[in-house]
Amino acid sequence: MEAATPAGEAGADVSRLSLNTATTKSWTLAQAVDGTVRAGLGAIGLWRDRVEEAGLAESAALVRDAGLRVSSLCRGGFLTASDEVGTRAALEDNRAAVVEAATLGTSELIMVVGGLPAASAPGGPALPHGDRDLVAARQRVADRIGELVPFAVEHGVRLVLEPLHPIFAADRAVISTLGQALDLAQPHPAHAVGVVVDTYHLWWDPELRAQILRAGEQGRLASYQVCDWILPLASDPLLSRGYMGDGYVDFTSIGRWVTEAGYTGDVEVEIFNQAIWDTPGDEVLRVMKDRYVRHVLPALTPPTA
Amino acid sequence: MEAATPAGEAGADVSRLSLNTATTKSWTLAQAVDGTVRAGLGAIGLWRDRVEEAGLAESAALVRDAGLRVSSLCRGGFLTASDEVGTRAALEDNRAAVVEAATLGTSELIMVVGGLPAASAPGGPALPHGDRDLVAARQRVADRIGELVPFAVEHGVRLVLEPLHPIFAADRAVISTLGQALDLAQPHPAHAVGVVVDTYHLWWDPELRAQILRAGEQGRLASYQVCDWILPLASDPLLSRGYMGDGYVDFTSIGRWVTEAGYTGDVEVEIFNQAIWDTPGDEVLRVMKDRYVRHVLPALTPPTA
Repeated sequence: MEAATPAGEAGADVSRLSLNTATTKSWTLAQAVDGTVRAGLGAIGLWRDRVEEAGLAESAALVRDAGLRVSSLCRGGFLTASDEVGTRAALEDNRAAVVEAATLGTSELIMVVGGLPAASAPGGPALPHGDRDLVAARQRVADRIGELVPFAVEHGVRLVLEPLHPIFAADRAVISTLGQALDLAQPHPAHAVGVVVDTYHLWWDPELRAQILRAGEQGRLASYQVCDWILPLASDPLLSRGYMGDGYVDFTSIGRWVTEAGYTGDVEVEIFNQAIWDTPGDEVLRVMKDRYVRHVLPALTPPTA
Repeated sequence: MEAATPAGEAGADVSRLSLNTATTKSWTLAQAVDGTVRAGLGAIGLWRDRVEEAGLAESAALVRDAGLRVSSLCRGGFLTASDEVGTRAALEDNRAAVVEAATLGTSELIMVVGGLPAASAPGGPALPHGDRDLVAARQRVADRIGELVPFAVEHGVRLVLEPLHPIFAADRAVISTLGQALDLAQPHPAHAVGVVVDTYHLWWDPELRAQILRAGEQGRLASYQVCDWILPLASDPLLSRGYMGDGYVDFTSIGRWVTEAGYTGDVEVEIFNQAIWDTPGDEVLRVMKDRYVRHVLPALTPPTA
């Protein structure tokens, strides 16, 4: 089945467009690879859950045989545990993720660094008891990134720090701005620690242009992920993302900044949204391509001098 | 009726504690003034809706006769309109708010500056059509603050910029960090434009300590407002605030920074929360005092050298 191409957009260049497998949650990895190829995209972004289901070697073969680039692997991270057992488990899991990224043929491992320890604990209480020290949690992230860097470099994998919207600062990521992510990356070489610009998380950041340019200058801009900030928020704010154009994100400005910063890599669409998850995958890809071509692509083309 | 004092906290100093009238939403202004006096607090923070109901002159007399300080007036702002009619209306409303603040005897007018124009329009569509240019919206805020400053100074009122949590960047405030608020304040004297630190909005800000100290050095720290960030978010995120101690905010660190910055003013408790609104006001004040004494006050006392 061919995805329909909107009138007037025939031949639009979707070679940099990448499907993040979280966008088509109901698809297995094989289905997502097939759908991505069918839609004519150049790349796919993988979540570890889909890879685990399919098997690591099998997943690597699937993607390679399909001729797709792997734009990133999601995700490592959750590095804020304040106890020894939690810390050891986190480091071990991140080393496994590094190996998976290398095996899958991507150099970019996205890192969601974790929230306050009490809030992050799986099955933990809704209200935290104990550790609210955000400054200390951030320091633990810095220390553990430092511990993981040699292992990552050895495997040719970059740890890509993802600043998350501050709505998730308590329970998912104590990194909230691009500047903060770049400060954490600073002690390490650019091939060891990078950053990702996700429009959903960063569209509001008052320093966004300056920090995107800083990331570009340092060679740390590892990924550009796009989806929209929609209102009202979904009851689970984690699922409150929309197709590009359905919300408030200024893709024209942000796309121009990313281009100014020299980014020429893949553009991943990663949307967590129940209604989109309930839509057949090919239809999701059709809309996603259309929105990419209309709202994202124009700003990614440097003006011909 | 005397508010109960928790055992062991008898005599704790609540002279800097201020009830923001939004916390006891069901109370009229007269009831809020009486309740604040009954609880032994030194100050009250007023919202304009309660003042309007009671009448401006009457409100001023009520608070003055009760011997309370007015820690702030909430709120001016909503300055991001991109059309002439909307702009003129906003400036006029802000001049009225300045006069109200002066009449009520407070120098501090809290400014919630407004979101993207389409998102801010009352009764407007959930999805915006048109103006997503956040950089331009911020510039309009800067310009209009500049227009309002002479009028405010003439009336002895300071425009106090409130950075709001980025969850509200689309629909309520295009100022999201304390550093950004201070950058906007920079062209104006400290007695003309100040900033407020509200823990709910700023607890996640990676530059919070540095920017609080900067605000202190510049004499711009006009208000300290406290309440907690709780999870899961309420279905209306605007109402997702909790008593101090019920969530993730590190009041010890933030209180210490505010104290380091030289702030010795009132500490306002402003909680939007349906369950708290449904609780009798005196009970709300009892809990609020207890939480203030346990979680907030200790960090506000500079160590004796």
